[in-house]
Amino acid sequence: MLLSLLQHSSRSLLTLRTVQTLNKSFYSSQMAKRVAVVLAGCGVYDGSEIHEASAVLVHLSRGGATVQMFAPNVDQMHVVNHLKGEPSEEKRNVLVESARLARGNIQDLSKLSAKDHDAIVFPGGFGAAKNLCTWAVQGKDCSVNDEVKAALQAFHSEGKPIGLCCISPVLAAKVLPGCEVTFWHNADFSRRRGRKYPDTAGTADAINQLGCKHVSKGVGESHVDEKNKLVTTCAFMCDAPIHEIFDGIGSMVQGVLKMA
Amino acid sequence: MLLSLLQHSSRSLLTLRTVQTLNKSFYSSQMAKRVAVVLAGCGVYDGSEIHEASAVLVHLSRGGATVQMFAPNVDQMHVVNHLKGEPSEEKRNVLVESARLARGNIQDLSKLSAKDHDAIVFPGGFGAAKNLCTWAVQGKDCSVNDEVKAALQAFHSEGKPIGLCCISPVLAAKVLPGCEVTFWHNADFSRRRGRKYPDTAGTADAINQLGCKHVSKGVGESHVDEKNKLVTTCAFMCDAPIHEIFDGIGSMVQGVLKMA
Repeated sequence: MLLSLLQHSSRSLLTLRTVQTLNKSFYSSQMAKRVAVVLAGCGVYDGSEIHEASAVLVHLSRGGATVQMFAPNVDQMHVVNHLKGEPSEEKRNVLVESARLARGNIQDLSKLSAKDHDAIVFPGGFGAAKNLCTWAVQGKDCSVNDEVKAALQAFHSEGKPIGLCCISPVLAAKVLPGCEVTFWHNADFSRRRGRKYPDTAGTADAINQLGCKHVSKGVGESHVDEKNKLVTTCAFMCDAPIHEIFDGIGSMVQGVLKMA
Repeated sequence: MLLSLLQHSSRSLLTLRTVQTLNKSFYSSQMAKRVAVVLAGCGVYDGSEIHEASAVLVHLSRGGATVQMFAPNVDQMHVVNHLKGEPSEEKRNVLVESARLARGNIQDLSKLSAKDHDAIVFPGGFGAAKNLCTWAVQGKDCSVNDEVKAALQAFHSEGKPIGLCCISPVLAAKVLPGCEVTFWHNADFSRRRGRKYPDTAGTADAINQLGCKHVSKGVGESHVDEKNKLVTTCAFMCDAPIHEIFDGIGSMVQGVLKMA
């Protein structure tokens, strides 16, 4: 009976482990491009944006890539009650919560070596600006998590492509001087200003002040910085139907796999 | 600056609310089919399977549907640490955790009225068998959450289609006597038996013992019970690449929208 296998008994723990082992086959095939995906928790307001992370995995799978997920083993900056839109008093760990998105098949980011992978992808969500760096509270003066910084520098120096979406491109802007990224379509700005949407123009300015270049792109497009092998897309930074965001992430993932 | 808008200050709470309001436009358009999606938490082992829920939203959006998400306002049966595959001592609320998948745009399931919607969809994940009913611990003798039961009966009696995937079809088997569902491809059974995968043959037997019929279908297919307007698909109950699971859910969603 499924009954006995779903209970939280020692028997059920064996089952969870077995399911996790089986999960590996969802993301593996021979001679495929090996892609590392770095998560930042599980939930748009304090972790990885769930639908962006899921879209990354679907598109990588369709592209025949093998995937290994990673997250830093640190506390979240804070935990947001997503129903109320308010921070709670809870503590949650970025790696443990990211494991929800990875169905348990995830490793500590400290184990990541660029030599084992052909490319790396960072989904967005506020967690990228809170748990992978401190952009959420310090903007362009932020610090970047040491392991995230080392990963970006290693993939970049080995000439391996890096994909980022939503707010994650600020990680590249902070670590890779002179790079080009998109996270926004400028035409949407004036429409949004009155609605107090996150100040994307300010973020674009900050990126430019770092010596990088923000390039305006639509939600279904991605921007390729050929020199730095960076591929970026707006995702949920745009006010678009979720299937268009899904397609934009597809464009980003295809761009990454093409260069891998 | 994005900086000020991401902080967990009162100003940032306003921003979260504003973002949540904007989210509504991701799921709305005029004259579209109105679909209720019922969630059961956020994470495969104690809530809704994240990638199934996300796939449901992407396919509904592509199909031009408007979506309103719901979840019961109850404690989870338990909280599983998805990294260790072990239950923890935490308490989490199904509605609050489901709000992570819904980007905050979700309502208490007690507010759901079949009259306001043209169809209803239940993603899978262990949460469907733990938080929406007690199948995980009682099998075919389980009880179904009163609001879930009422919703299934109301949509069924009004002749509105119901979509379910993964383990969720047990909800229909328990509430709608004589229905037909799939959650598994029989051909996979012998291959899986040795791997201690959840006892799907036992679950299929239990469904048959309830007077319903389990129909074997592949991961990319869905089964349509025309009489009861039920559309079901295996999703992660099959050991398949995630993009094939995504496509199978697309088949289920398209089947639902066709009958709505």
